[in-house]
Amino acid sequence: MDMIVVAFEGRDPGADRIAAGLGAVYSRAGLHRFPDGECRVRIEPETVSKRMLVVCSLYDPDPVIVPLLFLAQTLRDYGAERLLLVAPYLAYMRQDCSFNEGEGISARYFAGLISHYFDGLITVDPHLHRIKFLDEIYTIPSRVVHAAPLAADWIRDNVDKPLLIGPDSESKQWVVDLARRAGAPCIVLEKIRRGDRDVEINLTDVERWRRHTPVLFDDIISTGKTMMETVKHLKQAGLAAPVCIGVHGVFSGDAYQELLAAGVEKVVTANSIPHASNAIDLTPLLCEAAKTVFS
Amino acid sequence: MDMIVVAFEGRDPGADRIAAGLGAVYSRAGLHRFPDGECRVRIEPETVSKRMLVVCSLYDPDPVIVPLLFLAQTLRDYGAERLLLVAPYLAYMRQDCSFNEGEGISARYFAGLISHYFDGLITVDPHLHRIKFLDEIYTIPSRVVHAAPLAADWIRDNVDKPLLIGPDSESKQWVVDLARRAGAPCIVLEKIRRGDRDVEINLTDVERWRRHTPVLFDDIISTGKTMMETVKHLKQAGLAAPVCIGVHGVFSGDAYQELLAAGVEKVVTANSIPHASNAIDLTPLLCEAAKTVFS
Repeated sequence: MDMIVVAFEGRDPGADRIAAGLGAVYSRAGLHRFPDGECRVRIEPETVSKRMLVVCSLYDPDPVIVPLLFLAQTLRDYGAERLLLVAPYLAYMRQDCSFNEGEGISARYFAGLISHYFDGLITVDPHLHRIKFLDEIYTIPSRVVHAAPLAADWIRDNVDKPLLIGPDSESKQWVVDLARRAGAPCIVLEKIRRGDRDVEINLTDVERWRRHTPVLFDDIISTGKTMMETVKHLKQAGLAAPVCIGVHGVFSGDAYQELLAAGVEKVVTANSIPHASNAIDLTPLLCEAAKTVFS
Repeated sequence: MDMIVVAFEGRDPGADRIAAGLGAVYSRAGLHRFPDGECRVRIEPETVSKRMLVVCSLYDPDPVIVPLLFLAQTLRDYGAERLLLVAPYLAYMRQDCSFNEGEGISARYFAGLISHYFDGLITVDPHLHRIKFLDEIYTIPSRVVHAAPLAADWIRDNVDKPLLIGPDSESKQWVVDLARRAGAPCIVLEKIRRGDRDVEINLTDVERWRRHTPVLFDDIISTGKTMMETVKHLKQAGLAAPVCIGVHGVFSGDAYQELLAAGVEKVVTANSIPHASNAIDLTPLLCEAAKTVFS
């Protein structure tokens, strides 16, 4: 046996199922906090092998980074040779340039840190903006998994008469693709700005869509503000309460509650970050990626 | 000008005075927390020079490690070539072996991490137990500063008729040294165990010391339990309320309040960790060490 999956409690979305999918052993690392704030990592020595997957979701990253690096070193001390990090949610992708003089480029520094401790990286839909490919900043082999096919499956199986909504013209490409996969129609909104606070959308054909369920999709739901604005416009236009899908449910503060309160029928996320809204299981895609990276 | 001192707010004990003592510029790095828990570091580019001191106290270390590593990288991006870390309190010195099968040796891993990002380390009385010298685990040059001479000065200047107390026979060596420096008498207690909960001390000459102020000293006050036990014995023996001195006031939970409630006259610490009890300023020793390391 030469592929073990290790994860920390609370940071291990789907790790047991990833292990099952790979026919690998699942082993949970112990993480103890001392009263002074220091941590201690403990692994099960009998499960260590040469090639290992470490599953760790990196939302709210700072408290888990030190334990994660210690975990990598402990596994190596016990004989692991190749450590593949599976981070369903990857941290520090947003500070991808120095927006103001003197600011550090966290995306680059974080990539350097992870590349120093691991031999490979698998993640799901990272926030790629100014940085187009992970290889620009990660020096280890990386593989990006896209959740859209799983989201399309979920829409087809769970939404009554779905109508995919692209919130702006920039979204056209992916919303058309998602609609095609889900076998559903789509419309792309265009905002008509009449003043600072007076924005309308160009939804003229309302009667045609009144019995459909609008579906909004985004890679990250963080504050939820962008989605809430679109929800408001759809309601003003007379459409039904929409279903909101986010790959990564970061939900800063009360974002989840606020989104529900804004008149959304349902908020659904993938299980890259453990949350009550998790409904799309990334396991099959992560297993597939792990197989090709380790083949 | 070629020696700048940089520190984070709240982690910068005495950094401004260290800068003044070295005739160096003091610059504070900005640390911003985004709602999703990620951090952003910002420095003042005009203060960056080739040789720099980064002051950062490493109590409750995990939340500050990522910002600290990002700070080091940002400074290098802006031209710094030699980064000396001044950590008045050094973290992860206690897990210095694998106490149980499968446990990582955090002291070693942490040393590796810091050695990867910095070019030198200055710290105060680190917890050296199984590891005797920092060089065993740190691959960068390090210098250890001892707070005892400053503690002795403080005792001489602030305690009325001090009597240095060594809590057990193991403490004899340092308590005799501290007493000599403070120009004060000292006694070393010996515990006489009469049962599991029945421990007495061999303090026979009580009348001679009744008007003295007992002084307890330790490198770290963490839970405070050890000190509280000695306080209890001194009170039972009829001595005055003692003064407790710790180099590093970690004070897990309510340790500080509990120590005061145990009948201590005063709790005093060095400023390696910012706390209300700080009374011993480490600045002169840190400046001296920085000068020799950078000379």
